[in-house]
Amino acid sequence: MSAAHAPVSSSTAVKDAFPATDAEAFTQHLATLRRQVEAAMDASLADRPDIVANVPPSLRESMRYSALGGGKRLRPVLVLLACEACGTPVAQSMPAAVALEMIHCYSLIHDDLPAMDDDDLRRGRPTNHIVYGEATAILAGDGLLTRAFEVLATEIPSKDVALACVADLASAAGWCGMVGGQAADLAAETTPITTLAELEQIHHRKTGRLLACALTMGGRIGGASALQLAALSRYGFAIGLAFQIADDLLDVEGTSEKLGKQTQKDAGAGKATYPGFLGVEASRQRAADLVAQACGELELFGPQGEWLAHLSRFIIERDH
Amino acid sequence: MSAAHAPVSSSTAVKDAFPATDAEAFTQHLATLRRQVEAAMDASLADRPDIVANVPPSLRESMRYSALGGGKRLRPVLVLLACEACGTPVAQSMPAAVALEMIHCYSLIHDDLPAMDDDDLRRGRPTNHIVYGEATAILAGDGLLTRAFEVLATEIPSKDVALACVADLASAAGWCGMVGGQAADLAAETTPITTLAELEQIHHRKTGRLLACALTMGGRIGGASALQLAALSRYGFAIGLAFQIADDLLDVEGTSEKLGKQTQKDAGAGKATYPGFLGVEASRQRAADLVAQACGELELFGPQGEWLAHLSRFIIERDH
Repeated sequence: MSAAHAPVSSSTAVKDAFPATDAEAFTQHLATLRRQVEAAMDASLADRPDIVANVPPSLRESMRYSALGGGKRLRPVLVLLACEACGTPVAQSMPAAVALEMIHCYSLIHDDLPAMDDDDLRRGRPTNHIVYGEATAILAGDGLLTRAFEVLATEIPSKDVALACVADLASAAGWCGMVGGQAADLAAETTPITTLAELEQIHHRKTGRLLACALTMGGRIGGASALQLAALSRYGFAIGLAFQIADDLLDVEGTSEKLGKQTQKDAGAGKATYPGFLGVEASRQRAADLVAQACGELELFGPQGEWLAHLSRFIIERDH
Repeated sequence: MSAAHAPVSSSTAVKDAFPATDAEAFTQHLATLRRQVEAAMDASLADRPDIVANVPPSLRESMRYSALGGGKRLRPVLVLLACEACGTPVAQSMPAAVALEMIHCYSLIHDDLPAMDDDDLRRGRPTNHIVYGEATAILAGDGLLTRAFEVLATEIPSKDVALACVADLASAAGWCGMVGGQAADLAAETTPITTLAELEQIHHRKTGRLLACALTMGGRIGGASALQLAALSRYGFAIGLAFQIADDLLDVEGTSEKLGKQTQKDAGAGKATYPGFLGVEASRQRAADLVAQACGELELFGPQGEWLAHLSRFIIERDH
């Protein structure tokens, strides 16, 4: 797992560290999982007769617009890979993957609202409220958030596991997790963040909790032991932070064409970032260290943890 | 249960139909349950050290402002009374009562937003976004919605019952239920409602589903049989509609002083209402018929259903 220590700014470095076949196999596996997630999201928001009879078309279309709008599908893929790392077929964890992605999609809709980040563009497309109006966008977010818990409660075969997943997701997405992190981010607009510890604490809640939850839910469904669950959770927090650092680096270095959203926005808004605190090179090193740490957590899974190791490296190579 | 057929516009009529002691005992019981709900809501959003460490003060205060802002507490009281009707102590159903009320409170915060109903006043106090700003109000709603599922998943002793309650609540509050009803209500602003059936369908989703869910969750926790659960659900739908008719009548007849919110707003906005379709007298009769029907559903519960019968009559006597 020494490849995690390679310079993370060049995709060549990572590719060299693995046999080409491994990298290709991973890329293929990732593409397969993403297609499966896309199909499952579609099915979970499908126009069945009972849905058409009860859900106004504007709300249905608005929910589907944001839930099926592509994107990296990182969170649901993590659920599936965690399940697979335990030796369990990925299909069993698809409901949890769908639920988690619905939470992520709702949070993007609400974050983009004029009263929040006021973004017009997301994944290269107009944001939800630009297309459907603010009122419907608020309701679409509420609808996806609520549907996530419905999917967990009704589609996971083991009741004990389903209930644990509901508790995991509600905790990770709620006031002590993602919603709290978003509120802290808002508060930072008037009381600027002055230390790296504060910045990490916000990322921990805004991104880390939900990524760790992806791993924990996948692990629970996969039948992970308590030790394995704890390791998966730590892996999630480590890659969550690495992901955020990579995001900050992309904002400094990327272009809006590649990202499908506005870049250099953070610096322009005077927002605290990793490169702002540490500089670009040290930020890259910190991301690489976190990936190494994440890979270290996978020892309990043996060869079955290899996809997750690949994914952690992929996360800081996102500009492709 | 003939009192349900008495004219519902005069509280004297209903009081005459029951021994004064019954009415007093009910009023006392209701006050006790409301106090218990208030205390449980407070405890569930309390400033514990782990909350203070993770939830920014603005979000915490905003969530508490709307969740502890008084109100009738009709929905949580229904949960408790349904549990009690099955011969089970009300305390066991308090987590479900709290969760349901959190859903109701979140929906009010989001409904009041400028992009939605744009209300400045709720329960005689400034609405959440007037006090905390729109961004925090959106997050407070999201936080309460998510916390509701956390409470259900972690505080109901029986895992089977807890999971069934999560499924009930997510279905009742989601795109096919409350959120869908709200979207249909929005759509009616541009495509006006022309039939009573359409109006009832919107109320069914916007109010009825959540009230029926209150009864079903309380019944589940109380150990209701399948027949009893179905009866409780029908009772919930009947009083939900009666409640909405009473609300429409209050809007025609009430004053903003009594209600703590603007009245005669519906007619002014050209909104479809029961009195608009049926006239005032026929609307009163329909409400009374629905209460009679609701009381009829309580036969399976014997004397233990008496508090629910009282409550159904109380609902259409809300102007006191």
